[in-house]
Amino acid sequence: MLREGIVLNESMLKVDAFLNHQMDPQLMQAIGTRFAECFRDHNITKVLTIESSGIAPALMTAMSLGIPMLFARKKKSLTLQDDLYTERVYSFTKQETSDITVSKRYIGPNDTVLIVDDFLANGEAAFGLCRIAEQAGARVAGIGIVIEKSFQPGRKKLTDAGYRVESLARIASLGNHRVTFAEETD
Amino acid sequence: MLREGIVLNESMLKVDAFLNHQMDPQLMQAIGTRFAECFRDHNITKVLTIESSGIAPALMTAMSLGIPMLFARKKKSLTLQDDLYTERVYSFTKQETSDITVSKRYIGPNDTVLIVDDFLANGEAAFGLCRIAEQAGARVAGIGIVIEKSFQPGRKKLTDAGYRVESLARIASLGNHRVTFAEETD
Repeated sequence: MLREGIVLNESMLKVDAFLNHQMDPQLMQAIGTRFAECFRDHNITKVLTIESSGIAPALMTAMSLGIPMLFARKKKSLTLQDDLYTERVYSFTKQETSDITVSKRYIGPNDTVLIVDDFLANGEAAFGLCRIAEQAGARVAGIGIVIEKSFQPGRKKLTDAGYRVESLARIASLGNHRVTFAEETD
Repeated sequence: MLREGIVLNESMLKVDAFLNHQMDPQLMQAIGTRFAECFRDHNITKVLTIESSGIAPALMTAMSLGIPMLFARKKKSLTLQDDLYTERVYSFTKQETSDITVSKRYIGPNDTVLIVDDFLANGEAAFGLCRIAEQAGARVAGIGIVIEKSFQPGRKKLTDAGYRVESLARIASLGNHRVTFAEETD
């Protein structure tokens, strides 16, 4: 992240080199293995993420746990028209609201869900995924995040709501055009 | 596909159970291994796909080949504003035109590219990815497709243009509400 991340401004970090555009499969596999270790004892039945950049880490986590991965869509597609769980999510990065949807066919009250996403900033996407899981009657075991922007309110909102959040990298600041990591406190 | 695919009409097959919404990581890994075997001798340097459903099979192919994966975006994002290769692609499924983009930073004349996508129908997305690779001066070693709708013109257009197409499943027809596979001819 220090070598290949590009600090665009005080709130945006560009990691296209290994996470959001180009991807390093070995890194993705290591990320998946780590999330699987964190939540190995929770009898997770499904990894839930949102397109597009969440798919790779979620897939590798699901592979490591030996369970299916499910990704929420950001808009309805022509081939996904049956009963859907829908939540409205606002993206601060893209400055737009989108409906995220998951088919009722693939998640239900017998599921224990691990949510995985690439970034945590304001927590909108993660909360939307939690609400979808809970609409389905599923249990949310926790949330695995590749890069957390700890200076934004997402983590606090999620932990205040009772969710366990495991972030692999926690960024305290993007000030002065550089990445400063948070000290480990938990 | 026979057990879990749902034939929506004579041209649309829904495979949300294992490819387009929920994903089976073991199946994705097997798909990646197979594409890697097909193109192992071509000194591929990068696997190129398009968001979202292409990401999983492309990532697994890249993992098997030990190289990076790169996915084209369907619209410009706020964090991806530097020099881009752009191609216009029409989706018959979604009935919309979108600009697909790849950063010039991650593909160039020293690359040999394997294109991977989930579906091949009219070939629009695959052609767009080929054009992007060629804009970059890269060589296209071939195209790996998970499910080919052989009754649509994509394969013929691509092979007529000189591209090698390897499809793991070739569907001859979706008539009579069922999947009929093409006989193997190559």
